[in-house]
Amino acid sequence: MSSIAARLIPAWLRQYQLTDLPTDVVAGLVVGVLVIPQSLGYAVLAGLPPVYGLYAAIVPVIVYAWAGSSNIQAVGPVAITAIMTASSLYPYAEQGSEQYILMASLLALMVGALLWIAGQLKLGWIMQFISRGVTAGFVSGAAVLIFVSQIKYLTDIPISGSSLVDYVGSMITQTNQLHPQTLIIGVIAFCLLVANRYGKKWLWHSWLSASYAKWAERLFPLILLIIAIVLSMSLQWGALGVAIIGEIPQGLPSFTLPPIPDVSEALNLLPTAGLMALIAFVSSSSVASTYARKRGESFDANRELTGLGLANLVGGFFQSFAVAGGFSRTAINVDSGAKTPIASLVTVLVMIAALVAFGSALAPLPYALLGATIMSSIIGLIDVATLRSAWQRDRLDALSFLAAFFGVLIFGLNTGLVIGLMVSFASLILQSSQPHVAVVGQLGGSGHFRNINRHDVVTFTNLLILRIDESLFFGNSESVHRRILQATKDYPNAKEIILIMAAVNHIDLTAQEMLSTLNQELAEQDKRLHFSFIKGPVMDIIGHTPLINELSGQVYLSTIEAVRDLEKG
Amino acid sequence: MSSIAARLIPAWLRQYQLTDLPTDVVAGLVVGVLVIPQSLGYAVLAGLPPVYGLYAAIVPVIVYAWAGSSNIQAVGPVAITAIMTASSLYPYAEQGSEQYILMASLLALMVGALLWIAGQLKLGWIMQFISRGVTAGFVSGAAVLIFVSQIKYLTDIPISGSSLVDYVGSMITQTNQLHPQTLIIGVIAFCLLVANRYGKKWLWHSWLSASYAKWAERLFPLILLIIAIVLSMSLQWGALGVAIIGEIPQGLPSFTLPPIPDVSEALNLLPTAGLMALIAFVSSSSVASTYARKRGESFDANRELTGLGLANLVGGFFQSFAVAGGFSRTAINVDSGAKTPIASLVTVLVMIAALVAFGSALAPLPYALLGATIMSSIIGLIDVATLRSAWQRDRLDALSFLAAFFGVLIFGLNTGLVIGLMVSFASLILQSSQPHVAVVGQLGGSGHFRNINRHDVVTFTNLLILRIDESLFFGNSESVHRRILQATKDYPNAKEIILIMAAVNHIDLTAQEMLSTLNQELAEQDKRLHFSFIKGPVMDIIGHTPLINELSGQVYLSTIEAVRDLEKG
Repeated sequence: MSSIAARLIPAWLRQYQLTDLPTDVVAGLVVGVLVIPQSLGYAVLAGLPPVYGLYAAIVPVIVYAWAGSSNIQAVGPVAITAIMTASSLYPYAEQGSEQYILMASLLALMVGALLWIAGQLKLGWIMQFISRGVTAGFVSGAAVLIFVSQIKYLTDIPISGSSLVDYVGSMITQTNQLHPQTLIIGVIAFCLLVANRYGKKWLWHSWLSASYAKWAERLFPLILLIIAIVLSMSLQWGALGVAIIGEIPQGLPSFTLPPIPDVSEALNLLPTAGLMALIAFVSSSSVASTYARKRGESFDANRELTGLGLANLVGGFFQSFAVAGGFSRTAINVDSGAKTPIASLVTVLVMIAALVAFGSALAPLPYALLGATIMSSIIGLIDVATLRSAWQRDRLDALSFLAAFFGVLIFGLNTGLVIGLMVSFASLILQSSQPHVAVVGQLGGSGHFRNINRHDVVTFTNLLILRIDESLFFGNSESVHRRILQATKDYPNAKEIILIMAAVNHIDLTAQEMLSTLNQELAEQDKRLHFSFIKGPVMDIIGHTPLINELSGQVYLSTIEAVRDLEKG
Repeated sequence: MSSIAARLIPAWLRQYQLTDLPTDVVAGLVVGVLVIPQSLGYAVLAGLPPVYGLYAAIVPVIVYAWAGSSNIQAVGPVAITAIMTASSLYPYAEQGSEQYILMASLLALMVGALLWIAGQLKLGWIMQFISRGVTAGFVSGAAVLIFVSQIKYLTDIPISGSSLVDYVGSMITQTNQLHPQTLIIGVIAFCLLVANRYGKKWLWHSWLSASYAKWAERLFPLILLIIAIVLSMSLQWGALGVAIIGEIPQGLPSFTLPPIPDVSEALNLLPTAGLMALIAFVSSSSVASTYARKRGESFDANRELTGLGLANLVGGFFQSFAVAGGFSRTAINVDSGAKTPIASLVTVLVMIAALVAFGSALAPLPYALLGATIMSSIIGLIDVATLRSAWQRDRLDALSFLAAFFGVLIFGLNTGLVIGLMVSFASLILQSSQPHVAVVGQLGGSGHFRNINRHDVVTFTNLLILRIDESLFFGNSESVHRRILQATKDYPNAKEIILIMAAVNHIDLTAQEMLSTLNQELAEQDKRLHFSFIKGPVMDIIGHTPLINELSGQVYLSTIEAVRDLEKG
């Protein structure tokens, strides 16, 4: 019984101290109220009716509170998963249609299932595969796309597509659909929000204390939202042709089975869901691990996979779209004093209250305000600082940044991310593609062998001794091959070629085949190939392969042994 | 003048020896005649009318003869680029339509341009980035796709799509369209061709000498083609409803401008063209370099890029689809005695003769025979041997094989290739993701520091000395971070942490940020971080970064210096 309870009741709840309750409740209320505009906006960004932003902040949050890795991370709808949802579903259904809404939940469910499976397989280390440059470049590119996509709501021009080219193209051809009143409302809201965020020094700090100024800045979007609702109601913006969000359905998200896709559709969505899962995991982990470090806690990547996975999986059955941990949400949560997931559960109550009690009050809200909210908040995600520091400190990482950034703008989110990853992997391989292959000689009469260019060593006419300084794999086997052949041309009288393998930790299939080819080529020139100092684990792998079975020479335990056996004076 | 001539007239032509002419001519005639069935079939595989297979064996071949890297490689339509063309254009136009044909040339042109640019940028080393497992897995998956796709021509069931799931799905729903006569013709032809290829021992070798048997096997598909034409004509197969290729246009491929795509379409095709270029380059290089090695010539990957690029680029303007070097074509060319590209030029004359003189003779040929030709020849590309040897010799490469193979079958060619590459890169990173971090102590009173678990060394209570045994990058920075923090917990009294960086050749941005974070974390615990033995090139990069500027400790040239400075006895 107690073990079942232990599995069902999370550790933070069993150890809950009632003294934390007041700050948790306050933090939960603050986050709940402040993130409402954002949540509505991200739903719109995802191509869904605004109310789905509130839905996405209910069931997934409850599940993450139970199963997540972090006590203080606030999960919910975030910009990146929202835009990825929009661009993935673009070919399948019209934004906002019933089919589209169901597919957004299906995608959340798939993302959740993939994350959960990855958690069960303990694939948390996969986070390490994405370099800083790729993440920053991808997020920056996505931010630009998001910014441009929201111009739709500030102008009423129907912008669609999945890349910057699509957006700009559809914008240019349809400028005649610009709606002036909408533009005025949107631009004013955008300017106010940008001033609030980037002009906070003179706007708030000039007359408020630091902590008041911080809260003034945070409350401002909500106040603007209320003002917009009041103005829209009193000035009848809807009747002027300004798009307003309209009556939103009252009540909680309900259990809804997403459509069962046909196999081909599911397979088309799967790679997209995989990339979304990767990005949701990487961004959530980066939030959760940053705060874990600040609080001196350890961060368990596999637990984060499982928690985020379940949150999306269960959320997918309750009308949620894909969620992740959000930096701004979490920052507000922590700043407001959250100690445990109780704060998140209070946030859920705020969302429920908004849905049940204030739903109809939101009806006059113009879409332009939501667009302006997102545009002003997304600017900060364009990460010029990382690009600049990468440029100064690691050019190849800067290249990965640029590849991901322009990849996203030109080819869209998925292809852009893949391009960025490819470039970062390629630059990694490039770094080890030219390993050092040194011609060595014997140091005095000792068992030590050193580079003949740097030390005064003894060489032997019939022997060519080469030291390979790195593991052999597909990325360097051709250049190693070339260098060895070059050395045999430089020392034409050496009939016995000895490769010192002391630094080789691994020889992959490509490199094994290269060595086999080399063995044959040397044999055709009446030269023999020998190895010395092959490490135990390497020998275990290659011991019974054609490479060793057909080797023209011998495998020696040490180089000195090889020299004694082979030298002819 | 002579330098212009030198640039315009390839080296093999300037040095041409007339004694090579007879064998070149014979080889050219043989290749030209033997590859006709294949060429027609690959055009059909690419979704084009059969005659385009002959077109693709004219202009690109002439250009490659002039600019290619290999004297004996025979380029032309090959299975992989054909199926990639079909699956790339599938969403854009109906197979065989005028628009489709123009887009196939456009794709060849884009592939050519990308290859040519890569050649100018000297990106030949990129070939090294693709492991044996990925190539073999991709080709095997493509072979299965090709095999299944050709069932269309043996049954008359319209199979379409871009993955195995699509194929099988469309086959199952349309079985009622099976055309029995076509099936009979196709199955008989397929069985005969398989017997010819895999039963050659009893079919030919039992009664012919080895070299006659070889030529009997090679001639057989051509003879079967002629028999099929004769039977089709006399038995009126066309009237029975058997699909025949019909009148083919007489005359040579003409200069045709491919359609100028709109930006969005071009951008959608570009990643596909990139992958096709990569595959065309990798497969051609593998053919050309294999034969270069056999002939003791050197292989210039950049020249191959340029040559293959120009062949496709110019070919795209002359109604060709994407071409590459073919293994079987080249093998026949070499076996028949080809010494120089004159052989290829003779092949071109054969194609021209076929087009001009025999074009109408091909009309009664049933598509089922072309399908059977491809199906029987494609089986050999399913590379079980490589999978088996990878499984025994390098499990991670076997994993890459399987990822590419099933990726292609499940998600189609492009996604499958990307998945295979990702898995091969990931397994590479995985191998260096857990580098050795050793706690070391001083050996006697010397300047040498060794692992405390393996040597009898002196340690110092207030010092923790750690040696990092690999370059630091995004793939291992988190695990190094964890290990260092763990070591500081194991030695709580050590307030000075010294990292020996002698084996660190590179520190990327992610790892630099990790070390900065580590520095802060240690500072918060009143511990200082020091480095010793930072290599020159590494110091050049990190010298002026926040990491060094904000370091709580010092950078020492040697560990002994650090110990002397910091130890408190």
